[in-house]
Amino acid sequence: MEIANIGEFGLIDRLTQDIKPCQPSTVHGVGDDCAVLHYPDSEVLVTTDMLMEGVHFDLTYTDLKHLGYKAAMVNLSDVFAMNGTPRQLTVSLAISKRFSVEDMELFYEGLRLACQKWNVDIVGGDTTASLTGLAISITCIGEARREDIVYRNGARDTDLICVTGDLGAAYMGLQLLEREKTVYYQQLDDLNKEMAAAKADGTYEAKRSKFKLQSSKLQDFQPDFAGKEYLLQRQLQAEARGDIIERLREAGLHPTAMMDVSDGLSSELIHICRQSGVGCRIFEKQLPIDYQTAVMAEELNMNVTTCALNGGEDYELLFTLPIGDLEKVEQLEGVRLIGHITKPQFGHILVSRDGQEFELKAQGWNFDK
Amino acid sequence: MEIANIGEFGLIDRLTQDIKPCQPSTVHGVGDDCAVLHYPDSEVLVTTDMLMEGVHFDLTYTDLKHLGYKAAMVNLSDVFAMNGTPRQLTVSLAISKRFSVEDMELFYEGLRLACQKWNVDIVGGDTTASLTGLAISITCIGEARREDIVYRNGARDTDLICVTGDLGAAYMGLQLLEREKTVYYQQLDDLNKEMAAAKADGTYEAKRSKFKLQSSKLQDFQPDFAGKEYLLQRQLQAEARGDIIERLREAGLHPTAMMDVSDGLSSELIHICRQSGVGCRIFEKQLPIDYQTAVMAEELNMNVTTCALNGGEDYELLFTLPIGDLEKVEQLEGVRLIGHITKPQFGHILVSRDGQEFELKAQGWNFDK
Repeated sequence: MEIANIGEFGLIDRLTQDIKPCQPSTVHGVGDDCAVLHYPDSEVLVTTDMLMEGVHFDLTYTDLKHLGYKAAMVNLSDVFAMNGTPRQLTVSLAISKRFSVEDMELFYEGLRLACQKWNVDIVGGDTTASLTGLAISITCIGEARREDIVYRNGARDTDLICVTGDLGAAYMGLQLLEREKTVYYQQLDDLNKEMAAAKADGTYEAKRSKFKLQSSKLQDFQPDFAGKEYLLQRQLQAEARGDIIERLREAGLHPTAMMDVSDGLSSELIHICRQSGVGCRIFEKQLPIDYQTAVMAEELNMNVTTCALNGGEDYELLFTLPIGDLEKVEQLEGVRLIGHITKPQFGHILVSRDGQEFELKAQGWNFDK
Repeated sequence: MEIANIGEFGLIDRLTQDIKPCQPSTVHGVGDDCAVLHYPDSEVLVTTDMLMEGVHFDLTYTDLKHLGYKAAMVNLSDVFAMNGTPRQLTVSLAISKRFSVEDMELFYEGLRLACQKWNVDIVGGDTTASLTGLAISITCIGEARREDIVYRNGARDTDLICVTGDLGAAYMGLQLLEREKTVYYQQLDDLNKEMAAAKADGTYEAKRSKFKLQSSKLQDFQPDFAGKEYLLQRQLQAEARGDIIERLREAGLHPTAMMDVSDGLSSELIHICRQSGVGCRIFEKQLPIDYQTAVMAEELNMNVTTCALNGGEDYELLFTLPIGDLEKVEQLEGVRLIGHITKPQFGHILVSRDGQEFELKAQGWNFDK
C-alpha cells in the first residue's frame, strides 16, 4: 500500500496501534506533544543516534525488519554502556516515496522485537517525508542509580582492560555482503552487455532461450554465505550486551570506565584514555576474534588484527576494572582481558604477537571513506 | 574549512567546545554514551522532531543560523505545549559533503541562541555523514510537576478554545520566499536562453557588455520583501511561546487541553477533539490574523482563512479553558478566544462571517504535496 493512500496520520496510527507501555516509569507514551516519564529516585540517561541510507545501511542486503532491530539495539547499547537500564525510546523516520506502508510496518516490527527483548517502551517520534532515501533517528532514555553510573573518565593506572564477545565479525560480515553484491551486479552487467552485443550482430533471436535461462538464474541469485552465517548475523542483527551488565552486577563488579564498541576498539579505547587522562597497553594475542572472522580476513587478504581494532559495529562493551578484580573477571563468561591501563606518558600501545609495540590510531567516519 | 580536514571528532570538538551545562538537572552533558539527567520530584517530558532538507527547509533562502534556531524552537514548543519547562536537548546531524565546518558552526550558533533564550542545555547528539543534503533530528527533554501537565485529551463540553499570537503568517512568509526564488530563477533562465540564442545567431560578441551587466544585476538580486518583514520573521525565526506559559501560570489559569500549532490550527484542533472525545465550534471572525498576512493572501489570490486554518508552522499555542475562566482569559494579552468545545455529535465546525457552518478538515504532510 502506498503511504500517500493513508497519509501521515494514517501511517502513524498503523505503526503505533500495537504499542502499549509496559514500564511503570512511562506515564504517557505516543500521541501527545511529548512523552511523560517518571523517575523518582534515579538519574535519567539520554542517548541518540542517526542512521542514513547509503551511509549506515544498504537496503540491497539489509531488510527493514533487521534494520529496525539494529537501529533500536545500537541505542540500547549506549544505555548499557553507562551501566544503566534502557526504559523508553523515541523514533523519527524520514521516508521517501519508494517505501510502502508494509515496509514501514516491517521496520517497526524489528524495532518492537528489540524493545520487547529489553522491556523498552516506544513512547513517541516523528514521521515525515524525505526527498531521497530513508533517515532514522532514535533516542533512548534509560535509568540508573547515581552511584551505579559508569562514565568514560574513570579508568586509572593499573586497571584491567576488558572486552566482551569478539571483535571484527560485523565488519567482516559487511565485507562479505559487499562482495556478494558486487558479484551479483557484475553478472547482471555481463549479461546485459552480451544481450546488447547479440542484438547488434543479429544473433539475439538465436540466443533468446539461452538469455532467458541466464536471466532467470540471476533472479534466483544465491549469495555464497556458507560457513559465514555468524558474520552475517553480527552485521545484520546487532545485540546490545545487557546480559553482560546483568552478569557484572551479579558478580559484584563495578567498572571504573565503560563504553560500547561502535567505531572500533582502537577508537573507543583512546576515548576512554583521553577522558580518563591515562594510557593503555593491550595485547594482540588477547584480542577475541571468532574463527569465521579470521577465515574471512584471510580470504580477503586483510589483516585480522586491523579488522578487530578498527572494524566497528561490534556493539560489544569495553570496560576497565581495578586490578583487584582479576580473579573475579577471569571467571566471567564472555569477557576477555585484553590489557591494562598505564600512566598517560606511555601512550596507547598495542603489543603485537612478536612483542613489537605499535601506537593505536582512532578512526571516526570520514567523508573520504 | 572542509569537514574532511578535521574529521568527525574534530568537528564534534569544535561544535561542542563552548557548550557548558547551566541546568542543575544536567548531571553530565556532551561526551559520553549518554547524557545523565536528574529529576527528583518531577515528570520527565520527551519530544523529538526530524527536519529534512528540501522537505522542511530550503537553504536557498534559509541561512543555517536561522535553521538552527528554528530546529531548537520547534522542539521547545512541544514541551511548552505540555505546560512543561524545557531543560535539555540533543541534536543529531547528517551532513553531506557540500557543508563546511563554518556552516555547521553557524547552525550551532542558532541552536545555542534558542537554547540560551530558554536556559536549555545541549547535552548530546550524533554527527554523521549523509549522501545528499542535511538531515536534522532534535530531541528535547523537559520537566513538569505531575499535576501541572496538560495533555490533549482533557477538553470538556463548554470549554473555551483559545489561541495565542496570530495564524497563517509563517505560511505566507513561505509563499513569499518561494515567489522571490521563482522570480530569481526565471530571470536567470531567461538570461541563459538569451545568451544561448545570441551565440547561435552570432550576435553574442556584440551583446557581451549587455549580458555582463544583466548578469551582475542578477548577482545583486534583491528580493522584494518591503512591508512583509513580519511574514519573513514568522517563517524564518519561529518563537516557542514559553512567555504565554508563564503568563498563564501568573494568571492562575490551567488549560484543560493544549498543543502547539505546527500543522495548522484545523488539524491540531481536530487532534484535541478526537483525543478528548468532544466536538468544537470556532468562529472565522475571531481568528487572529496579522495585517501583513491578509495583504499577502490578497496579493496571491488566496483565502486568508484557509491560510490561517491550514498554513502550519505557526508554533502558537492552542488550548482550552473552563468557561468559568472567561473573564481572566479576556484580560490575557496575546491570547484570542476563537470558539468553544461542544458535545462530540456536533462535529468540528467553523462558523463563517456570514453565519454558514463548515466542517474542519485535518491536514498532515503528504507525498503529493
